Amino acid sequence: MTGLRLERDSSEPIYQQIAEQLRSQIASGALPLGCRLPTVRSLAGSLDVARQTVLEAYRLLGSWGLTEARVGDGTRVVRELPSAEARERLAALLASGPMADYEPLSSAGGLRSLATAVPDPALFLHDEFLAEIAELRNASPWAFYYAPPAGLPELRYALARERETAEAELLVTLGANHAIGLLLDELCSPGDQILVEEPGFLGMESFLTMRGLVAVRAPSGSAGLDLDALRSLVKGVKAILCWPSFGPATGSLAPLETRREIVRLAEERGIYVVEDAHYRPIAFYGQPPRLRSLSRSRFVVEVDSLSGYLAPGLRAGWVIADRELIGRLEQRVRGTGSAGLGFSQLALAGYLRKGRLAAHLERVIPRYRARRAALTSGLRFEWPDESAWFEPLGGLSVWVTLPTGGRYEDLYEQSLIRGVPFAPGALFGAPSNTLRLSFGTQRPESIQEAMAILGRLVRDRVR
Amino acid sequence: MTGLRLERDSSEPIYQQIAEQLRSQIASGALPLGCRLPTVRSLAGSLDVARQTVLEAYRLLGSWGLTEARVGDGTRVVRELPSAEARERLAALLASGPMADYEPLSSAGGLRSLATAVPDPALFLHDEFLAEIAELRNASPWAFYYAPPAGLPELRYALARERETAEAELLVTLGANHAIGLLLDELCSPGDQILVEEPGFLGMESFLTMRGLVAVRAPSGSAGLDLDALRSLVKGVKAILCWPSFGPATGSLAPLETRREIVRLAEERGIYVVEDAHYRPIAFYGQPPRLRSLSRSRFVVEVDSLSGYLAPGLRAGWVIADRELIGRLEQRVRGTGSAGLGFSQLALAGYLRKGRLAAHLERVIPRYRARRAALTSGLRFEWPDESAWFEPLGGLSVWVTLPTGGRYEDLYEQSLIRGVPFAPGALFGAPSNTLRLSFGTQRPESIQEAMAILGRLVRDRVR
Repeated sequence: MTGLRLERDSSEPIYQQIAEQLRSQIASGALPLGCRLPTVRSLAGSLDVARQTVLEAYRLLGSWGLTEARVGDGTRVVRELPSAEARERLAALLASGPMADYEPLSSAGGLRSLATAVPDPALFLHDEFLAEIAELRNASPWAFYYAPPAGLPELRYALARERETAEAELLVTLGANHAIGLLLDELCSPGDQILVEEPGFLGMESFLTMRGLVAVRAPSGSAGLDLDALRSLVKGVKAILCWPSFGPATGSLAPLETRREIVRLAEERGIYVVEDAHYRPIAFYGQPPRLRSLSRSRFVVEVDSLSGYLAPGLRAGWVIADRELIGRLEQRVRGTGSAGLGFSQLALAGYLRKGRLAAHLERVIPRYRARRAALTSGLRFEWPDESAWFEPLGGLSVWVTLPTGGRYEDLYEQSLIRGVPFAPGALFGAPSNTLRLSFGTQRPESIQEAMAILGRLVRDRVR
Repeated sequence: MTGLRLERDSSEPIYQQIAEQLRSQIASGALPLGCRLPTVRSLAGSLDVARQTVLEAYRLLGSWGLTEARVGDGTRVVRELPSAEARERLAALLASGPMADYEPLSSAGGLRSLATAVPDPALFLHDEFLAEIAELRNASPWAFYYAPPAGLPELRYALARERETAEAELLVTLGANHAIGLLLDELCSPGDQILVEEPGFLGMESFLTMRGLVAVRAPSGSAGLDLDALRSLVKGVKAILCWPSFGPATGSLAPLETRREIVRLAEERGIYVVEDAHYRPIAFYGQPPRLRSLSRSRFVVEVDSLSGYLAPGLRAGWVIADRELIGRLEQRVRGTGSAGLGFSQLALAGYLRKGRLAAHLERVIPRYRARRAALTSGLRFEWPDESAWFEPLGGLSVWVTLPTGGRYEDLYEQSLIRGVPFAPGALFGAPSNTLRLSFGTQRPESIQEAMAILGRLVRDRVR
């Protein structure tokens, strides 16, 4: 075991120096997965330190989930860490908007990611969906023709039934982002102001900037949009973008009163309000009402996506709005060549018709509830008491505000090195002592481990 | 047989009045498919006309493909015509840009459509593609996660091999329109001028207008862009959009000299040239070279799409350009939420890897050649001699200029009523005596019939 250099004058304890340097060697691949570390006795001898110091270092590596000690087998590396290059790529991804490629990359790198609020691909029984596709053997060859810009009639029909609306008021999109993009492009012009809940969704900043739109940020707490702020900020805005049922960052839930006031303001001022409802079905205690159930005025628009609770790779979302606006969006889809895949939409329609989506939700919601419990019990027992957060009633995320005054500059980098990425609040335009922890893709045991590792890092920085 | 009203003073011959009114009754459904027309004797009696007049009217209906006479069985309706409402919808569709929903609608209406330059869905062996999808049963659940914005690595790899380029120079899109849209959005700003071949693709007008771009139209003949026109028009334009290998309207084919000059002008002036190559593989006598094979300069960009020769419903196209531009397009796909479907891309990658695309092309090209022959022999033998056209060496369309001075105002309407829609030249910004005939979706016998019907209509209007 060479290459360890101890600085005996440093304020960093020796055991921590040893652990950090071994961690670097694990990250670089110098100590690969399965490799056995030197015995405590031999390493203590070669470094000229007490055995207790090496023991402490190994204990620390173990608490990071990097090594495991077994009687008779010594201490082995049980986890690969992302290389510097992979870390850099991951860090860049996190900053560059909707993270289509983040999770597979971080999963391949052996990370326990709390970074993205997406459903667990492993919970999607893709055999059920593939069975629907297999039935297309008997379908008309037109199933492999273009899908109509507003979506295949069969899928529009199935979704409209599901959401109790008319087919002509529904347009199929490639997911929520595509839907919101179409709406903003149709309703707004560069320079227009959009009122949005703060914090919003990951990548919202670049999403709005790309269109030359100006975000007017209205603070949102556990009960969603702050009504006073909403009333004072709404003047002069072109549209409102909100998520009354489980904010993508915070898991906030707006009470009926707030929903009514949002709708009232939109109608009174003749501005559009876009409800992004794509976490709404992940509701742990009954589904909250949609804004469209309070008003079908043309100013109330709903966006949904199966990417939030079924499988992102199906790229299926939709807009519900009045016919006239749907017609304009249809022309826009035509003009941008962004219609979906006919055969996939046909298979999805069959999936919905057979009640498989409802069955899926019944199956997965208890699991997400258990994952949320693993995450919040970690917050309760492993994190500093002064952390502020609330237990969301739905969605896939918990928003945490850490004690002010802590030194969190390197928190993201250090958690990434330990295999536990999260979404820093800064990505949502929030202060550096905030972060979003998402519990969609990890199993409860992984979440427990991740929260222990992350909690320790946070506590170290609060002291 | 009631409801026939003859105007004996009209300049329109009686037999034609009878035929036209029976045609209307077929279109309205009053004479449904399979219905037997009255005998010649009884109709002549009730209308008080000569039997020869009724015989002539029935012969005309037969020549339109609407009825069939059999000895012992009389004359029956063998074709349904679109109702007034369906006709109206079809006519509106044709005018409203890329016609995602035109062909299935016209096929359902029993039309022999020559209107859209798309491949025949019936020639796509979708079982082969579904077999690839069935293999996803054993794939990682991440196959049902988001596809990366630049496309799934497996598909990028397979396409890059196919086109002899680097993976980092290729970005998967949802087809050619999506690719061109991304490029125009990235490279141009509202008010910019784009040099395009005239006639271009269907819907190009709205495609450019939606982006506030100004089309500078350079005339294109059988040999593609006119070089003198190109040189004199290129000043001040921001980009060139062209299809040296089989124009979507004309089937034009640019010689090597023209290709070299286009590339030279782009490089000299530092403007981008976008080659839309998505009909290039449908080549009846060997595939012409790509602009990218003449220069890999960053100014030479290629767009392709499987919608031109495999199946539009897979929504798979791609851009080939230098890495830097591909990176910018990747960000744009991320920001617009317009990435494709991971599982579909994975299946396509398998399809390509097994050489199925090459086999598909080998199988379908002789068929498209036969369809082209059916269409051009119709032009040769059934149409007025003064019609100008050339036999394209690839692609799916023939461009026809009819004798000037003919009365073509009602040609599209009348051909639609007879079940033979085409794409009027006006949709491409061309004079009213031009039209595009496409031979992708109809079998040779249908094309022969369609050309006979249409030829007769044209001849009537030239006289």
